[in-house]
Amino acid sequence: MQLARVIGEVVASVKDVNLAAATLLVLQPLSASGEPAGRTLVALDSVGAGVGETVFFVRGREAAFPFYPAEPPTDATIVGIVDHWSTE
Amino acid sequence: MQLARVIGEVVASVKDVNLAAATLLVLQPLSASGEPAGRTLVALDSVGAGVGETVFFVRGREAAFPFYPAEPPTDATIVGIVDHWSTE
Amino acid sequence: MQLARVIGEVVASVKDVNLAAATLLVLQPLSASGEPAGRTLVALDSVGAGVGETVFFVRGREAAFPFYPAEPPTDATIVGIVDHWSTE
Amino acid sequence: MQLARVIGEVVASVKDVNLAAATLLVLQPLSASGEPAGRTLVALDSVGAGVGETVFFVRGREAAFPFYPAEPPTDATIVGIVDHWSTE
Amino acid sequence: MQLARVIGEVVASVKDVNLAAATLLVLQPLSASGEPAGRTLVALDSVGAGVGETVFFVRGREAAFPFYPAEPPTDATIVGIVDHWSTE
Repeated sequence: MQLARVIGEVVASVKDVNLAAATLLVLQPLSASGEPAGRTLVALDSVGAGVGETVFFVRGREAAFPFYPAEPPTDATIVGIVDHWSTE
Repeated sequence: MQLARVIGEVVASVKDVNLAAATLLVLQPLSASGEPAGRTLVALDSVGAGVGETVFFVRGREAAFPFYPAEPPTDATIVGIVDHWSTE
Repeated sequence: MQLARVIGEVVASVKDVNLAAATLLVLQPLSASGEPAGRTLVALDSVGAGVGETVFFVRGREAAFPFYPAEPPTDATIVGIVDHWSTE
Repeated sequence: MQLARVIGEVVASVKDVNLAAATLLVLQPLSASGEPAGRTLVALDSVGAGVGETVFFVRGREAAFPFYPAEPPTDATIVGIVDHWSTE
Repeated sequence: MQLARVIGEVVASVKDVNLAAATLLVLQPLSASGEPAGRTLVALDSVGAGVGETVFFVRGREAAFPFYPAEPPTDATIVGIVDHWSTE
C-alpha cells in the first residue's frame, strides 16, 4: 500500500457499468516524510475519503476486494484514512 | 487507474484469437495537471473511446473484467471517458 | 520479494473491515548492499516484525496468501525477518 | 500492452517443465514514436513472431491466457504482430 | 521474464510457513547486453540455480505456479538457467 493525499475528483458519464456507483478520486502518493512521491493516479474510494484527506490505497488485483462480491474493474482503491504515522 | 489521452490506433492482422474483435488504442498517460506523464502504451477499449479523447484506464488482471465472460489477454483497458476532473 | 527495513507504523481508525486486525508498517526497501533503494511503502506484517528490523516482503496478489482463508486487501506483506544475507 | 521489437532469443536447457515447448524471445519495448523505451525483457511467443518483427505483448497474469488450459509461469507474452500503427 | 545473475542468498529463520523449504536467492537483473539493469531483488528458486549463474525469472502471480499445488507467497521465482542468448 502507499500513503497518499486526495487531491481531486474525476467526473465520467461514460464508464464501465460496474463503476456506475463509484467515486473516482485523484491521488498524489506520499513518501514516508509526507512529500509527494511518484505520479498521480485515479483510485476508487471504499471508506468515505474526501479531497484533502491523507489515505492509504492498495494497487492491483486486491483493489477489487473491498467491493466483493462486486468486481469493479479497478487497479487502485483507497482502503483506509490515516490518523497519523510515525517514522524512525 | 490513470488518466490518459488516446493518441493513436494499432493494426495487427496476426493476433491472439481472443483479441479478434478488439480495438487497440495507443494511450499517453496524463498527470493530474493534464501533462504527458510516463510511457505510451497499447490498451483495449471497452467504452467506445476514440483518438483525441481523454479517458481513464485500468491495468493488470482487472483489465479483462469489462469483457467478462470473455477473457482477452489484456493488461490495460479503457474503462471510462472523462468529462472533466478537478484538483485542489 | 525485496529486502527492506521497517521504519515506522501507520495508525488508521477508518479502514477496510478486513484490515481491522492488521499491523500497518512503513518500509524502506533496501538494495543488496543494504542501502535505501526505491520508495517507501506501507505493508502488512505476517511474521511479528517490528520497527528497526530487516525483513523481506512480497508484493501483489500473493501478499494476501499468508492470511488465508482471510483475504485482506493488501498488495504488500512482510513474509520473513532476515538474519543475514550474502552477496558475491 | 506495449509495442516492442523482437531483438533476440534465449536458450535454456534447464527450465520449468511448463516452459519445455516455449520460445523465449528478447524484446525491446518501443514508444509510440517507435523509439526504444524501457528495459529489455524475455517474453513467450504465442503468435509465431520472430527476430526483427514489431509486436505487442501483454504483461502479468494475463500472459498465461493464450496458452490456456496450460499455465506456463510467464509474466510477458507476445499476443500480436503489428502491421502498422498511427499516432496523432 | 527478465535475465538476471544470482549474486547471493538470504537467510531467514522467521518466515512464512509456506517458505520453510524455500531457497531465497538475491538477483541482479541484466539487460539484453548483459549489464546490470534495475534493482536487486529476492527470488525463490525452482530449478536448482546457484550463486554465479545466469537465469531468467518470472514476477507476479505466476511466480507461485512452479510450486503448484503449494502456493508460497512469492512474487519472483527463477524458472530457468540460461545457456546463452542472442541479440541482433
